[in-house]
Amino acid sequence: MTTKTPAKNVLWIMCDQLRYDYLGCTGHPVLKTPNIDAMAKRGVLFSKAYVQSPICGPSRMSFYTGRYMRSHGSHWNGWPLRIGEPTLGDHLKKIGVRNVLVGKTHMAPDLEGLKNLGIPPDSIIGVHVSECGFEPYERDDGLHPTGRPRPAYDNYLRQHGYDAPNPWEHWANSGAAEDGSLQNGWLLVHADKAARVPDEHSETPYMTRRAMEFITDAEDDGRPWCLHLSYIKPHWPYIAPEPYASMYGPEDVQPVIRSQEERANAHPVFAAYMDMRYSRNMSRNEAREKVIPTYMGLIKQIDDQMGVLMRFLEARGLLDTTMIVFTSDHGDYLGDHWMGEKDLFHEQSARIPLIVIDPSSAADSTRGTVSDALVEAIDLAPTFIDYFGSNPPDHILEGRSLLPLLHGKRPADWRKVVFSEYDYAMQDVRVMLGQPIERCRLFMVFDGRWKFIHASGFRPMLYDLESDPQELTDRGADPACADVVARLQSELFDWALHPRMHITTPNAKIAAYAAQQLQVKNGVLIGIWDEAELGAIREKIGIIRS
Amino acid sequence: MTTKTPAKNVLWIMCDQLRYDYLGCTGHPVLKTPNIDAMAKRGVLFSKAYVQSPICGPSRMSFYTGRYMRSHGSHWNGWPLRIGEPTLGDHLKKIGVRNVLVGKTHMAPDLEGLKNLGIPPDSIIGVHVSECGFEPYERDDGLHPTGRPRPAYDNYLRQHGYDAPNPWEHWANSGAAEDGSLQNGWLLVHADKAARVPDEHSETPYMTRRAMEFITDAEDDGRPWCLHLSYIKPHWPYIAPEPYASMYGPEDVQPVIRSQEERANAHPVFAAYMDMRYSRNMSRNEAREKVIPTYMGLIKQIDDQMGVLMRFLEARGLLDTTMIVFTSDHGDYLGDHWMGEKDLFHEQSARIPLIVIDPSSAADSTRGTVSDALVEAIDLAPTFIDYFGSNPPDHILEGRSLLPLLHGKRPADWRKVVFSEYDYAMQDVRVMLGQPIERCRLFMVFDGRWKFIHASGFRPMLYDLESDPQELTDRGADPACADVVARLQSELFDWALHPRMHITTPNAKIAAYAAQQLQVKNGVLIGIWDEAELGAIREKIGIIRS
Repeated sequence: MTTKTPAKNVLWIMCDQLRYDYLGCTGHPVLKTPNIDAMAKRGVLFSKAYVQSPICGPSRMSFYTGRYMRSHGSHWNGWPLRIGEPTLGDHLKKIGVRNVLVGKTHMAPDLEGLKNLGIPPDSIIGVHVSECGFEPYERDDGLHPTGRPRPAYDNYLRQHGYDAPNPWEHWANSGAAEDGSLQNGWLLVHADKAARVPDEHSETPYMTRRAMEFITDAEDDGRPWCLHLSYIKPHWPYIAPEPYASMYGPEDVQPVIRSQEERANAHPVFAAYMDMRYSRNMSRNEAREKVIPTYMGLIKQIDDQMGVLMRFLEARGLLDTTMIVFTSDHGDYLGDHWMGEKDLFHEQSARIPLIVIDPSSAADSTRGTVSDALVEAIDLAPTFIDYFGSNPPDHILEGRSLLPLLHGKRPADWRKVVFSEYDYAMQDVRVMLGQPIERCRLFMVFDGRWKFIHASGFRPMLYDLESDPQELTDRGADPACADVVARLQSELFDWALHPRMHITTPNAKIAAYAAQQLQVKNGVLIGIWDEAELGAIREKIGIIRS
Repeated sequence: MTTKTPAKNVLWIMCDQLRYDYLGCTGHPVLKTPNIDAMAKRGVLFSKAYVQSPICGPSRMSFYTGRYMRSHGSHWNGWPLRIGEPTLGDHLKKIGVRNVLVGKTHMAPDLEGLKNLGIPPDSIIGVHVSECGFEPYERDDGLHPTGRPRPAYDNYLRQHGYDAPNPWEHWANSGAAEDGSLQNGWLLVHADKAARVPDEHSETPYMTRRAMEFITDAEDDGRPWCLHLSYIKPHWPYIAPEPYASMYGPEDVQPVIRSQEERANAHPVFAAYMDMRYSRNMSRNEAREKVIPTYMGLIKQIDDQMGVLMRFLEARGLLDTTMIVFTSDHGDYLGDHWMGEKDLFHEQSARIPLIVIDPSSAADSTRGTVSDALVEAIDLAPTFIDYFGSNPPDHILEGRSLLPLLHGKRPADWRKVVFSEYDYAMQDVRVMLGQPIERCRLFMVFDGRWKFIHASGFRPMLYDLESDPQELTDRGADPACADVVARLQSELFDWALHPRMHITTPNAKIAAYAAQQLQVKNGVLIGIWDEAELGAIREKIGIIRS
């Protein structure tokens, strides 16, 4: 009798716009998330995990490629990821693992690149490339204004009696007034209204069920998989179904984190962002009191769905073989720092919750611990490849596998700083500041204490999270901090000079070339004086030639 | 009666390993190049033109993509240019211009990338991609040791009676001793021997004839063309046919440019290069006395072929419509600075001759002039696109069109510094210095006076070409130069932070997004408070919706 080693899988759960401090296990004083907290108890909670760009598209392209934004080149939502940019899906394909999507990626296909290479977008390879290396079991980017291609979820709603030209907007993302009338869910003033569908038909449970359907189907298929379950919530439209819509109220809203000094002495880029419509609106107390309880409700709904999902996995015996990751693509200012949305690098925006459960016994010693290692979003791709037993291609991937940390062995050379980037060329901020398109760049370097932000064309920003954990004092122009600025600038300089761009040539090949004297072996003889020298070289490297 | 505007063409001639100062028009005291000098009289000679990497492959990939090495990622000979990296050929294809190759490119196809995308390498698109965007009328990389794929030139030699298992090596690139016996042409000791073929059957005249055959064929075809005539010489093997082999002797060799101080206080990277076999050998006077006369003879042969080619173009009436460029992919130390080959950034290595003839009347005012504008190899691709009347895509190309300079209008914002890069990961220097593969990087910043070299992991190098035009004194560690170092380091920092990587998204699209408020027009409403605010926004940007 032989026992077959059960296949390893990865279940990679991502929320959208979920900031670090809105979970029970990360310290929220009111919001309870027992299911997510239980996941943290089974794995490692990383308390210093940062995204590579605090906005959906670029952040996700970094997650999906394992590469910094400056390397993958997709700086903004809807900027296509260039054809030929290697994705996690490409790496997993080579080792026989399916890379499957349920939910959002924000990937835009490089249609011109496909056309130039003669690849039909609807061919198998065309779809693989256009879907960022995912097999789209269910692709749904979660924002479906009228006039755009429709999601399968529209049909689901119709089948359950929620008909409309745009069911996603009309039912699931509009609010119901007390008289039952429809209220535009895009508008902050309606964030306190309940969605016009019940919980079970709203997006989060729908996507959870789709994930479970895939997992069920995959049992017949038999191949190992990496399933990316990618929820749109708690991203706006800030509309939750009951009972979540009524679960929290203005009394649950935490004190806003901001100071008058921030406005008074603001860096020009920060000042421009504070002046954006969404920042001005989210800075109003009445907006916070409508939006934040709903934001909390949407997270509570996700937590309940985590319970559903974990029980499902347990019942199927998958918990012992499946690496489970719970994370987010960036945060949400929610009015802190006089800001709405994300855009800059305060903890509310660039820091994400990250829980990783490695079911193997090697990870037993770290279960339930919190790691303060500096972690980047690009670390997940190499972690997954490593978990499946393959070597992450280190000439392509710019992140590092987290497996050693999960196994309680922090490498001595673990990174000392994390990087994040932003390109505001597409935003009104560019026009306000009069910056050229190619110079709308922001770069964060954070060493665990000091957060340094390089803004092309402006002075830097700097925050000391030790003495100023709320990041209320920008010390970028403080002469007392010149040494810190110089040190972190130097880290940024070094990082900028060493992107991993030679993606066609692996390091092993490079190492062999000099070691094995392949140039001479190939017959290319450079600067050799005479036959005697040539003979000696050949003898030394073991070539006998006439 | 209508007159048809004759099609514009570009003839882009490149030598290999031809350094700046080995032409009559660039000041060589002995070597006369009347045909090339005549070209300079008809166009502009750029006296400060630099390659993006002083080695064939990476330099050429920068020429052919119009992008810095850090952007195209092909850091070394034989490192494939990644699939999807846009080439000059891609840009010209869109405007109906053929991009044609006769000679060398040093392109290696990205076979794995092709495979991943399901593109057969021998399909039309596969060939276009594999040949770096060129239509390979005749591809010949010029180095053909036994055991590698054979060039068409082998068959040509055989047809003319020069048979051998490797005719390229046996006849064209081996030397004949006085007794007629074959001498290995790869070895420096035989550089004073004549090739075993006459002038007419050697590589340079052969390639010239192939170019003329293409031009003749192209007349029937009718489409405009950009022809890259890319000679292998004066690159080693240093073997010239008669009469060029005997044209110059040891008495014509110019004094070596080097000092004892260079060796005594050498920067560690420079010291390692001086210790390479080819540097030690080329530093010997007897090597210089054998190699340099042959190097001069090979250039003289090219000059004579330029005469042949220009007379051919004149006879066909093509001089009035054809932009002609004469340049090189990098230089050759020839023993100067105790160095052989190229590798570092001294003028002997990184500076190239560049002559551009624009036949249009707009360029009449600059004919025969010398421009000291700082020019980079990546400027040629946008120059050609501009010459053909199209806008160079400035989100992809990192160089600038030279047309304004050719028309006597130097833009006020012309670049203040040029950049060049080098990656020594494939060389023995890496092993000697114990550097990690990803950190074998050198970066040159030159402002026309100061040449600054950043060496990852080491102190910088610095030369003042005003007080020290021969670059004999490295002032990288001189405290008196700290300000210069800081200034050029800051230029490098800024350059490193702003690569053009968003190749899928043109700047015009980016500009339109904020200007036309496309986000709101697309129905994505972010952070709007209520219906009144939404209505006001829609009215302002001209959307009327129910």
